[in-house]
Amino acid sequence: MATSLIGRQLALHLQKNLWLGAPGCRYVSKAAAKAEVEFDYDGPSMKTTVPGPRSQLFVLLLNFVFSQNVGAVNFFCNYEESRGNYLVDVDGNRMLDVYTQISSIPIGYNHPALLKLMTNPNNLSTFVNRPALGILPPENFPDKLTESLLSIAPSGMSRVQTMACGSCSNENAYKAMFIWYRNKERGQSGPSAEDISSCMVNQGPGCPDLSILSFTGAFHGRTLGCLATTHSKVIHKLDVPSFDWPIAPFPRLQYPLEEFSRENAQEEARCLEEVEDLIVKWRQKGKPVAGIVIEPIQAEGGDNHASADFFIRLRRIAAKHGCAFHVDEVQTGGGCTGKFWAHEHWGSDDPADIVSFSKKLLTGGYYHKEPYRIFNTWMGDPSKNLFLCEVLNVIRRENLLEEVARSGKALINGLYELQAQYPGLLSRARGQGTFCAIDVRDDATRDKILVKTRDKGVILGGCGDRSIRFRPALVFKEYHVHLFLNIFNDVLTQFK
Amino acid sequence: MATSLIGRQLALHLQKNLWLGAPGCRYVSKAAAKAEVEFDYDGPSMKTTVPGPRSQLFVLLLNFVFSQNVGAVNFFCNYEESRGNYLVDVDGNRMLDVYTQISSIPIGYNHPALLKLMTNPNNLSTFVNRPALGILPPENFPDKLTESLLSIAPSGMSRVQTMACGSCSNENAYKAMFIWYRNKERGQSGPSAEDISSCMVNQGPGCPDLSILSFTGAFHGRTLGCLATTHSKVIHKLDVPSFDWPIAPFPRLQYPLEEFSRENAQEEARCLEEVEDLIVKWRQKGKPVAGIVIEPIQAEGGDNHASADFFIRLRRIAAKHGCAFHVDEVQTGGGCTGKFWAHEHWGSDDPADIVSFSKKLLTGGYYHKEPYRIFNTWMGDPSKNLFLCEVLNVIRRENLLEEVARSGKALINGLYELQAQYPGLLSRARGQGTFCAIDVRDDATRDKILVKTRDKGVILGGCGDRSIRFRPALVFKEYHVHLFLNIFNDVLTQFK
Repeated sequence: MATSLIGRQLALHLQKNLWLGAPGCRYVSKAAAKAEVEFDYDGPSMKTTVPGPRSQLFVLLLNFVFSQNVGAVNFFCNYEESRGNYLVDVDGNRMLDVYTQISSIPIGYNHPALLKLMTNPNNLSTFVNRPALGILPPENFPDKLTESLLSIAPSGMSRVQTMACGSCSNENAYKAMFIWYRNKERGQSGPSAEDISSCMVNQGPGCPDLSILSFTGAFHGRTLGCLATTHSKVIHKLDVPSFDWPIAPFPRLQYPLEEFSRENAQEEARCLEEVEDLIVKWRQKGKPVAGIVIEPIQAEGGDNHASADFFIRLRRIAAKHGCAFHVDEVQTGGGCTGKFWAHEHWGSDDPADIVSFSKKLLTGGYYHKEPYRIFNTWMGDPSKNLFLCEVLNVIRRENLLEEVARSGKALINGLYELQAQYPGLLSRARGQGTFCAIDVRDDATRDKILVKTRDKGVILGGCGDRSIRFRPALVFKEYHVHLFLNIFNDVLTQFK
Repeated sequence: MATSLIGRQLALHLQKNLWLGAPGCRYVSKAAAKAEVEFDYDGPSMKTTVPGPRSQLFVLLLNFVFSQNVGAVNFFCNYEESRGNYLVDVDGNRMLDVYTQISSIPIGYNHPALLKLMTNPNNLSTFVNRPALGILPPENFPDKLTESLLSIAPSGMSRVQTMACGSCSNENAYKAMFIWYRNKERGQSGPSAEDISSCMVNQGPGCPDLSILSFTGAFHGRTLGCLATTHSKVIHKLDVPSFDWPIAPFPRLQYPLEEFSRENAQEEARCLEEVEDLIVKWRQKGKPVAGIVIEPIQAEGGDNHASADFFIRLRRIAAKHGCAFHVDEVQTGGGCTGKFWAHEHWGSDDPADIVSFSKKLLTGGYYHKEPYRIFNTWMGDPSKNLFLCEVLNVIRRENLLEEVARSGKALINGLYELQAQYPGLLSRARGQGTFCAIDVRDDATRDKILVKTRDKGVILGGCGDRSIRFRPALVFKEYHVHLFLNIFNDVLTQFK
């Protein structure tokens, strides 16, 4: 611990000197105010390029000594030393984290409230004895459910089912929609003898030829059911058998929005028309659409937005054709858009039939309206609900949703300024809360910018073909926005 | 705490009095030796029938106040008070647990070693900061992997991929087999332009029409891919779209095995022949079999066993036809058969291409031989690896695999005696280690026996049509076997 403290001080010292000598103007952003996050560091501190020598050594070790897959490993982390918005790596580099483990760290690293929870002896048993939650729930299950997931239930939804991860959440949500659809078709009568015998051998009518309508550019997970609705990258899909399910176009909005309002409205109308056509077509094909699944903002697929009006009209189309409407908030949920759920921005009292979540909610799961036959061994993990309760306490106590709205405003304004400043390089700045993105002129340049920015102490992620996505934690304050914009600007000058 | 201690003493007192007055002979089993598990209780202690009034109240609360699904809830548990082999419910009933959360508690409740791990400050960060393991692994990841999953790797396998649950493990194992199969087909050439464009819209050749061969009675999970290989119960399958994949018969062995060796060998040969026929048939159909998936003992489907010879020949058939061979050890893995993996009983140096696990391993995942494109956000949970390391330490330190072999022998001998004693009621006693089962004359009687046994303080589970499965923790000693057999015998006398 002593050595790493010394290392940290040393790194800070080195970094300060490096910064003094760093090129690039800093007029984009206001002078950064003092950090408001108590357990945070003051700023990034870089000792090496990333991955540094120790990270590289660990990769070699894992790859050649243990024959493990390391293809996607960025670097190895020192989670003990990471704090708030800063991720520390094994080489002692401390980076401002604007990607947060693919958007899955809600209130920063090692938040004191979460550490405190771990030291409470009353909580130990929840970690040590993982129950089969569907058959033998713990005594505090109703309480913890009320405190956590039910306290943030989307409008019109009172039922929630936890799951272990985002893919399982969507898989089971799809099953819930299929079961709901078939129950509706059967009415009062139960399953027929033919239903029962045929389903055991994977055949209809017991295993019906129903479909889920999804959108181009969508990402809903990588298990076989989810993957049939995922259309963002070839690498996800190639070589995996799939279902013949309909895929509608997701609107491709033109930016800045205010200049293209007519074109964008036409584009959204076109997509909705296509949705209705596909529903009819697949019904005629004998593969009726049981449900429509959509992200409020397509994340993995490139941070593609659509208007509130688009989603409300889509939900009406679903209802008109007897399809369930599933809003996948795995990446958008948890406060990063400035509201707890991104669909709240639509202003609808009845936004969906199913809302799925994971990532920043720490547990997977979905809200729904009807009881279904959904079951597995673990059905989630109560230790994650325990953390979620505490995360929600922190969000409320520290008004983090307001903070996100404020930081998000500073971030998007900064991005607008940067794209004005680098017109050939950056375009289509967009976002809601701190859930923002910007496009780079091509994918190679985007990837270079990501690496250069990381070497300057900021972790970002890519999405879509050539977008950069910003996914900070909810404790990312205005101070951090300005810190980030200054560093980002320094990097961008090299690409002018 | 004080009240629950008093409650426990009171319950013990009541229970002892109840026992004194209980009918039924006790000659089946030896006098029970003193419990050898330090943190264990002395025996069951029942205050109410189960579910008791408090459990019923919680169910009502959850169902009507919170509109949650409670269909499968047995009762609510007090995990804080549970110890070793004993699960305590919210009514203060203390039950010998021979089902262990659907076979997922490896070394009993609140094991001191696991509690101690939780109080070590060095471990806190692993619980509080869940990483995206595929891109940003923690520093101790290679160490923890060596200590845990790599130290128990099946013969011939050095690569392991963790996942969040059993279903995700199998889904991703299937994907690995599809990718492996297509890579093999393509040889040196990469994917074609047509592969790339077609996969994005769920069509071939990019999303190829490949299949996984599974067996009647199999259970591999309930997400869409897994479910296409699951054939144990209608309730799992009904209303969910599936794939047209081949389903081979799993041998239906006749018991006692020594009396039917010729018939059983014929039955196994018949099933293997059918496997080859199906592989050929599906290849002709244009849906080649990329992999075969099988459980070493079909658990959910009714504890169906086959000989080592069957599995070894099946593995050879897979190799002959260029299919990957996937052994699903989600329920059988972790030591309950007396060896760490059930497939070790086959005595093969090269048992499989893929071995998947979850449940008692605390983390999901699979072992494999080739590198594949498998990725998701969490890719498992390092906090579960931490627990697994400690579980493995306890297994080694306390020679629990030997203990399981010993307890298992006592258990199966007891079951043989009971089925001799109740010939019209019980049959087909079978098992490996403590992973045992016995059949009851019909499902209604089986279900009644489960309830009556629970009210006497023993938790059991059903499987298949009319089997009872025994799934104790690895700390279930001979003492517990005799305790169980005595209680079970008392219950069975009522069904004579």
